[in-house]
Amino acid sequence: MKPPIITLLTDFGSSDHYVGAMKGAILSLCPDARLIDITHEIRPYDITGAAFTLAQAWSCFPKGTTHLIVVDPGVGGTRRGLIAEANGHLFVAPDNGALSLVSRSFTAHEIAEDRFFRQPVSRTFHGRDIFGPVAAHLALGTKVAEFGPAVMDPVLLPIAEPVEKAEGAWEGIVLHSDCFGNLITNFRSDLFLEKLRGKFEINVGDGVIVRLATSYSEVATADLFVIAGSSGYLEVSVNKGSAAKDLECGPGASVHIKKY
Amino acid sequence: MKPPIITLLTDFGSSDHYVGAMKGAILSLCPDARLIDITHEIRPYDITGAAFTLAQAWSCFPKGTTHLIVVDPGVGGTRRGLIAEANGHLFVAPDNGALSLVSRSFTAHEIAEDRFFRQPVSRTFHGRDIFGPVAAHLALGTKVAEFGPAVMDPVLLPIAEPVEKAEGAWEGIVLHSDCFGNLITNFRSDLFLEKLRGKFEINVGDGVIVRLATSYSEVATADLFVIAGSSGYLEVSVNKGSAAKDLECGPGASVHIKKY
Amino acid sequence: MKPPIITLLTDFGSSDHYVGAMKGAILSLCPDARLIDITHEIRPYDITGAAFTLAQAWSCFPKGTTHLIVVDPGVGGTRRGLIAEANGHLFVAPDNGALSLVSRSFTAHEIAEDRFFRQPVSRTFHGRDIFGPVAAHLALGTKVAEFGPAVMDPVLLPIAEPVEKAEGAWEGIVLHSDCFGNLITNFRSDLFLEKLRGKFEINVGDGVIVRLATSYSEVATADLFVIAGSSGYLEVSVNKGSAAKDLECGPGASVHIKKY
Repeated sequence: MKPPIITLLTDFGSSDHYVGAMKGAILSLCPDARLIDITHEIRPYDITGAAFTLAQAWSCFPKGTTHLIVVDPGVGGTRRGLIAEANGHLFVAPDNGALSLVSRSFTAHEIAEDRFFRQPVSRTFHGRDIFGPVAAHLALGTKVAEFGPAVMDPVLLPIAEPVEKAEGAWEGIVLHSDCFGNLITNFRSDLFLEKLRGKFEINVGDGVIVRLATSYSEVATADLFVIAGSSGYLEVSVNKGSAAKDLECGPGASVHIKKY
Repeated sequence: MKPPIITLLTDFGSSDHYVGAMKGAILSLCPDARLIDITHEIRPYDITGAAFTLAQAWSCFPKGTTHLIVVDPGVGGTRRGLIAEANGHLFVAPDNGALSLVSRSFTAHEIAEDRFFRQPVSRTFHGRDIFGPVAAHLALGTKVAEFGPAVMDPVLLPIAEPVEKAEGAWEGIVLHSDCFGNLITNFRSDLFLEKLRGKFEINVGDGVIVRLATSYSEVATADLFVIAGSSGYLEVSVNKGSAAKDLECGPGASVHIKKY
Repeated sequence: MKPPIITLLTDFGSSDHYVGAMKGAILSLCPDARLIDITHEIRPYDITGAAFTLAQAWSCFPKGTTHLIVVDPGVGGTRRGLIAEANGHLFVAPDNGALSLVSRSFTAHEIAEDRFFRQPVSRTFHGRDIFGPVAAHLALGTKVAEFGPAVMDPVLLPIAEPVEKAEGAWEGIVLHSDCFGNLITNFRSDLFLEKLRGKFEINVGDGVIVRLATSYSEVATADLFVIAGSSGYLEVSVNKGSAAKDLECGPGASVHIKKY
């Protein structure tokens, strides 16, 4: 049997003991688990950012992977903990919407049985005390239904879809600004790339983009362009530069596409 | 036999080759070792910070874990290297006090036998050349006593304990400011939480805290409160905000508790 | 058989999904692979920095290790992908010079056979779609020659060597500034340390260094000195301080040594 894979996605940062403590809690229960960091640099409490990052990473992993997502502003309050199943993957997370982009119709169970928790359970660190141990127990083979009752109404964040404002004119948003300064929009390439085949204009912040590129390096340094990115969405980029800095834009900024 | 777990805690940062080189040196000797990062973002030379972070993480790991701690301003000088044992865990570190919060009475041996070192030994990077290889040999089963003579007087940092300044009035300090801006004090929750059951006032920097909370989310955003944190200490926090920023405080800042 | 080790060295940063997605793509093909991060904090597009960091780390790992280096400003353009072999290690990288300090005469093959790629191949993320999967197939035992034809002319960056400007006077450069602020020069210790045995002067930025130290701690805090660093090069340092900050210098800065 292959050692189970558990991925980790949090807003814990990399400078405190939190990630290490959570990994220790997992390995104390399931010493075989292979722990793979997605990132711990989600902005504190940014559930939307966690949802985007998870959506981009989870399906790259093999079926049977357990994904542990802990961005948890509601820790210690009344929010539930969830185990969700989708496409042969398992997800362990607070029920706050972080799984919204994995699936709109996943099967979920509440994390209710405290015999699976690390005791005593703190009021502020459920990654170490609840979610990590639950992921470890799942990796050990405990069935999802053993952790608690089915959840029929998991929290789902609304998905921002581009809106057609007029004939050949759409408004969308920036979903994510990556460390290269690429602005990842919510215009799906499979739906919108063909609309950019002729003359078009994209407006983001102060920027006007009229060029569609098929690789970064074909464009002169410092020129703005749009490209079908690896995320599945149209991205606004600058070759060897940062579109985010040049346009002073980030997640949530409006993106207008106009086709001529 | 389970593959041995080695945790890593350093001030090497994440952008240089140092962590990778140390991991390579370990895996060259013990390719089965499972390497788990606690953090590499301890502030350069901050032994006190390393001691706090180690204290919060080590006991979450299973017995038999080897913890490698390299925050080493004295590298290449006369300070000793140590292997310490406490509660079924092993610790490898320079003898500079980083283990002070693990135990006040651990069994320790000096790292003296250079046949366990990577050759040639540099004067500036004992993580790669001495501590990493020693951790690998321990993981392979070499006995602690083989590395050198017993150490009866390891360096121990003084532990800052709260002082009662008057009837119902204590002075303590901030031990750590985490990436969420929580100010972790040295007031142990098991000793001081009950003192906050009635009316009280806590002063940190310019802040006056009069509220005890049991979860972050029960307090309105931006209000200061105190909470029994996951660290075992009282923490001063702001829901979805940063107490450290609001109060412009960090490790070492004075914390006054007054009970009415 | 030991699980294969794959090291990762990129400019992806640690806050996006890129590292996680690439790891997932590897593990989907080779679930046994042991993934060891060298760093993901190479400055965006800094091939020279990647070459330095790789040179310092790769040989610490056991023979048989596969090193995956993705700093790839030319992604999606005409640059080739490479698999190189040197000293019993394998290297997978874009053909852009990042392997220049591993060897000047490595055996290399082009990555051409798209049956080893993750489909569909994006134009902007070959770490996930090509280089990661190729590293996984190598770890699974696929022979180098199966991926494509031999490459006889891999891109090699010029190596900056110190130049003797006059009798007993050399000019070199800073190769790297590490997170402690040590300035790692291109003066090899095995060639230049003996030249510093008598009276000498080193000039970097505004700094004048006249002291050779054998450990950091032997020098008073704040004083500049030169030391034979763990990198194999002379380094300009400050005990518990940052030479890079004090001298406002970084990679590429001139370094003058004059012997009296």
